[in-house]
Amino acid sequence: MKYVFLNNKFVAEQDAAVSIQDRGFRFGDGIFETIKIHNSRAKDFPLHLLRLEEGLQELKISFDTSSLLDKVEQLIKKNKQAEGFLRIIITRGVGSRGYMPKDDITPTIVIETINTPNMKQQTSSLIVSPYKKIPLTCLPVNYKIMQGLNSSLAKITAKDQGFSDALLTNAKNEICETSSANIFLIRKGKIYTPNLESGVLRGVIREKIINNFKANEEKIKLRQLKKFDLIFITNVALEAKEITLIVNQQTKAIWQSCPKVESVKIFKEIKEFLQKA
Amino acid sequence: MKYVFLNNKFVAEQDAAVSIQDRGFRFGDGIFETIKIHNSRAKDFPLHLLRLEEGLQELKISFDTSSLLDKVEQLIKKNKQAEGFLRIIITRGVGSRGYMPKDDITPTIVIETINTPNMKQQTSSLIVSPYKKIPLTCLPVNYKIMQGLNSSLAKITAKDQGFSDALLTNAKNEICETSSANIFLIRKGKIYTPNLESGVLRGVIREKIINNFKANEEKIKLRQLKKFDLIFITNVALEAKEITLIVNQQTKAIWQSCPKVESVKIFKEIKEFLQKA
Repeated sequence: MKYVFLNNKFVAEQDAAVSIQDRGFRFGDGIFETIKIHNSRAKDFPLHLLRLEEGLQELKISFDTSSLLDKVEQLIKKNKQAEGFLRIIITRGVGSRGYMPKDDITPTIVIETINTPNMKQQTSSLIVSPYKKIPLTCLPVNYKIMQGLNSSLAKITAKDQGFSDALLTNAKNEICETSSANIFLIRKGKIYTPNLESGVLRGVIREKIINNFKANEEKIKLRQLKKFDLIFITNVALEAKEITLIVNQQTKAIWQSCPKVESVKIFKEIKEFLQKA
Repeated sequence: MKYVFLNNKFVAEQDAAVSIQDRGFRFGDGIFETIKIHNSRAKDFPLHLLRLEEGLQELKISFDTSSLLDKVEQLIKKNKQAEGFLRIIITRGVGSRGYMPKDDITPTIVIETINTPNMKQQTSSLIVSPYKKIPLTCLPVNYKIMQGLNSSLAKITAKDQGFSDALLTNAKNEICETSSANIFLIRKGKIYTPNLESGVLRGVIREKIINNFKANEEKIKLRQLKKFDLIFITNVALEAKEITLIVNQQTKAIWQSCPKVESVKIFKEIKEFLQKA
């Protein structure tokens, strides 16, 4: 049997339920982290914890994270989850029907383990999302907020049209990321990724690549894609995955993979680094 | 005891819980309606149903609404709820951990009744929200989608600073609405409200006022506020409520109520109409 850590108790997975009055359910009023489990350990936990704490602050949710690692380790042990993923969810809690939370609200915490999904698909093609990325002026989208409708609609649209995922752009037609992964682009031996101001998730894998490969954070217009010969996307599940094709909404190719030897070499180094690190 | 209608069963309110795998909880992936109950009847139900159906379509959620009124009537009867509010929630359902829903997903439905909240507060002051309204290019914000973090952060900020609510504007500094109410403005005997393209909720009370008082739907810049002498906000709970003061983020007054006799008369007519209709 699998357990879920829910509000200070370990409960059976099938019993893990939250009140319909939880603001996570009512409004998506919360934040989450997806963390890789490798060799029975939560990989890069300090990086995830830092992002989670900053995100909680952005959301004005007061939550003490000091016992989180202990709970995570207990759950991994209880579920004998040597490999897979962790998902930590913290919502503002139960109470209030309007948007204003109750004064004495206590955050809801959920931690669950997830088996490694079957990711057979080798190629990855993107369609430019008809839904623009939500701007930073509206929400702290640099963090994993529980506002997934934008990503869901983008992903559903992509799949409906036969693509792996959707590439979201902002109001200025700068590229941001896919529905669930950061994006990197290589050109003449240099690595680029949209900067945080473009409105992208502060991905843990993204940060590791920036710090270890001196990737350049820049605003990158959709029409500049042509300049790059290798494009890949990153998240904790995929680590790094090469993109083969990007099409616009008329499903006309606007970018096709044609990697130079030098770019292939860099991408290989990044993949190896991520597997080890 | 109060009941909640949850996935084809009436359950006790305290037992009304959804799986942590419900996409409503994970992602706020769903839609809701708040409906007034008056004389044991769901007021303006056809208008709410129409909006709900259109919203479901925008969200690509396939859900048969034909038995909804029957369930609503049963619940009102079971809960002996002569006055108050109904809340109908429809999420995409349970299943999927990434943003892509399972193929065979079944929507989750929740219907609950809510007692009329205590709304003593007579004056209503607004602060311009530091969080911009999410644009229509990102999400179908004309509908009551379960993406309430933007409204929650706006409302929390307003309350923290001692104001009743926050006035959200869009990227062009056009006024949209408050965290939970549409806005109307009166000037020289004419009624105005931001048009849907500004990115506002298609409020049921908003539509009733537009249709019955020939209100003008327009883009209205924040800096044009001065031109209006009476401003009020509307939703099913407040019906119509006059605003006394609007301040900017430096909490400097940018608009103060100073209604002309003609505007007061119009506002009174609107209030009377809403109470009756």
